[in-house]
Amino acid sequence: MIDHKEFIKETLRLAEKGRGLVSPNPMVGSVIVKGSRIIGKGWHKAFGMPHAEIEALKEAGRSARGATLYVNLEPCCHYGKTPPCTKAIIEAGIKDVICSMEDPNPMVAGKGIEELEKNGITVRTGVLREEAENLNRQYIIYITKERPYIILKWAQTIDGKIATYTGSSKWITGEETRDFVKKMRFEVDGIVVGVNTVISDNPSLDYIAPSFQTKKGILHKKRYWKIVIDPHLKVSEEGRIWGCHNCKVLLVVSEKVEEDRVRYFTDKKDCEVIKIPQDGDRLSLKVLMEELYKREIGIIMVEGGSKTLTSFWDEKLADEVMVFTGNKILGGSSSLSPVAGEDKKSISEAVNIEYLETGRIGNDFFIRGRPCFRE
Amino acid sequence: MIDHKEFIKETLRLAEKGRGLVSPNPMVGSVIVKGSRIIGKGWHKAFGMPHAEIEALKEAGRSARGATLYVNLEPCCHYGKTPPCTKAIIEAGIKDVICSMEDPNPMVAGKGIEELEKNGITVRTGVLREEAENLNRQYIIYITKERPYIILKWAQTIDGKIATYTGSSKWITGEETRDFVKKMRFEVDGIVVGVNTVISDNPSLDYIAPSFQTKKGILHKKRYWKIVIDPHLKVSEEGRIWGCHNCKVLLVVSEKVEEDRVRYFTDKKDCEVIKIPQDGDRLSLKVLMEELYKREIGIIMVEGGSKTLTSFWDEKLADEVMVFTGNKILGGSSSLSPVAGEDKKSISEAVNIEYLETGRIGNDFFIRGRPCFRE
Repeated sequence: MIDHKEFIKETLRLAEKGRGLVSPNPMVGSVIVKGSRIIGKGWHKAFGMPHAEIEALKEAGRSARGATLYVNLEPCCHYGKTPPCTKAIIEAGIKDVICSMEDPNPMVAGKGIEELEKNGITVRTGVLREEAENLNRQYIIYITKERPYIILKWAQTIDGKIATYTGSSKWITGEETRDFVKKMRFEVDGIVVGVNTVISDNPSLDYIAPSFQTKKGILHKKRYWKIVIDPHLKVSEEGRIWGCHNCKVLLVVSEKVEEDRVRYFTDKKDCEVIKIPQDGDRLSLKVLMEELYKREIGIIMVEGGSKTLTSFWDEKLADEVMVFTGNKILGGSSSLSPVAGEDKKSISEAVNIEYLETGRIGNDFFIRGRPCFRE
Repeated sequence: MIDHKEFIKETLRLAEKGRGLVSPNPMVGSVIVKGSRIIGKGWHKAFGMPHAEIEALKEAGRSARGATLYVNLEPCCHYGKTPPCTKAIIEAGIKDVICSMEDPNPMVAGKGIEELEKNGITVRTGVLREEAENLNRQYIIYITKERPYIILKWAQTIDGKIATYTGSSKWITGEETRDFVKKMRFEVDGIVVGVNTVISDNPSLDYIAPSFQTKKGILHKKRYWKIVIDPHLKVSEEGRIWGCHNCKVLLVVSEKVEEDRVRYFTDKKDCEVIKIPQDGDRLSLKVLMEELYKREIGIIMVEGGSKTLTSFWDEKLADEVMVFTGNKILGGSSSLSPVAGEDKKSISEAVNIEYLETGRIGNDFFIRGRPCFRE
């Protein structure tokens, strides 16, 4: 008997290779199996590159006829950046398709499966659905909510402080953890910080971006965004945040900021300024999210400081939190908390966190979890 | 060859059985070995009961002659609640004594070893010293600093909040963790809370105290203290804190509180009031510690609230912290932090915590650690 789960696991492993490169597309892997032997493998390597199924079919060649295709996501049936996969699968003579989950993209959403079945292909879905949904949780949010997947990330002392009242925060966690965070940035398309963090810490927010090779052997580095929430356009034109080859700085300012001050920055290479309406004394993050979605920014990581983290939290704009705790106690009545903002009367109003991953790095602990906001 | 470490490990295991019952005495275990066979075992069962060596010698009887005695702490040589152990060891004809550490008690402090050697007994110390010192860390503090060993304990949300601004804190952690805390209380002689916690939470602070049997077969329950820091004597005469059989309530008030109000409480069964000078707007905890030491209170656990924890922390009166983190994020600009108080300018002034034990209970995490205060 053929173990479908084993082959789907292989598609998940292949899909994983696209992490950091495919967003806002999903991570997809595919294998083609004939008589329990894998005759073709493929994965979606980068945004704009061929889909996993196409790669796998190419490797299998003519032997694909009569074979079974495994894939962790429903094959697409629409013309996007590439032609539909269903067409290629039908033409290759695939007999069965086993997949983990339907594509939540309304342009697909079952229509891919329908198309295959209409052409005499047996389709089975739901194999390792939970694992597949977890792998592509960012994509699911991006597609269904039409905004980026939002990770709030902070480093705190044991007593939950992210900085002293003066803003001093170097260093709460150890070097190993800081390296780990730099690697986490690989996975995201944009890093969000408040202007105060830029002014006080002068961070570069740079990282060695992942790269991929095109068919012609050209090495492409992933492009990413440094997003600064800067209502009054206070950011300095100097500083480590500027001057990176494969990234763009996005300054998010209030509608009220004067046009020639804006122009000063837009004249800069690799800088874009967007004006956002105010919502009380905060910029409307909902509007910002729409703007990021328009730019196909699939995953953002909000790295602070306290004000910025709080504004996302209060708007329930947090799909994931990543909390690093260093082995220190700071105390202090004016030290900064990660999330301040709206007060709750009862502890029962606290937001439960469903753990995704927890662990220890050197002397630090981390919790990666999903906030379960009440609607 | 005889493995001294194995026998010392056995003494540590035996010593452990006295946890919660012997304080402010040390936990001590002893085995007597002849030709690599254990011929006698003993441990210090409870405060005021015979010492470990005496119990072990009793079990070995006459065979103790020419044998080796293992013990995790230097035998005592002074008349305290019981006659000196060195005397009994010499009289029994023990040939060698192997122990882990000298007794830091100035009445012993090497004199026990001297006494044994003077009587022709070979003594070796330092076997598993670190483990032995860790086991009796509470005792070491009690004896050398002449104050109780202080554990600060709190339960917090992931973002380091112990209550909402209204004081609501039920429940941050799960039931399993709360049961675990109740068991931790077994180990201590006194639980310290601020009066605001008593007023808002109405806690009983009770637990099923550990018990021991005397020689005559009488079952004794450990007595413990509920210590309330209550400068202005605001505590109510009603409430769950009153009326427990084997405990005493200690109200810690300012010198300025009027005598007849005090008398109202001292007339109560099982209540003592101590007046403490003020140190600014806080009661002098240093004086309180002296008072607890006089009462032979060896270990206290400070359970909150924020004000009380902070006053101990700011005075560097914390030998251990025990932090439980529940799977919630509370936020709120006025939510309560475990340690507020004195502000630090730089993160480098935070206090490093050396981990003693870390782990997970259900959905909660805990860190047990030793604060490394700069002097």
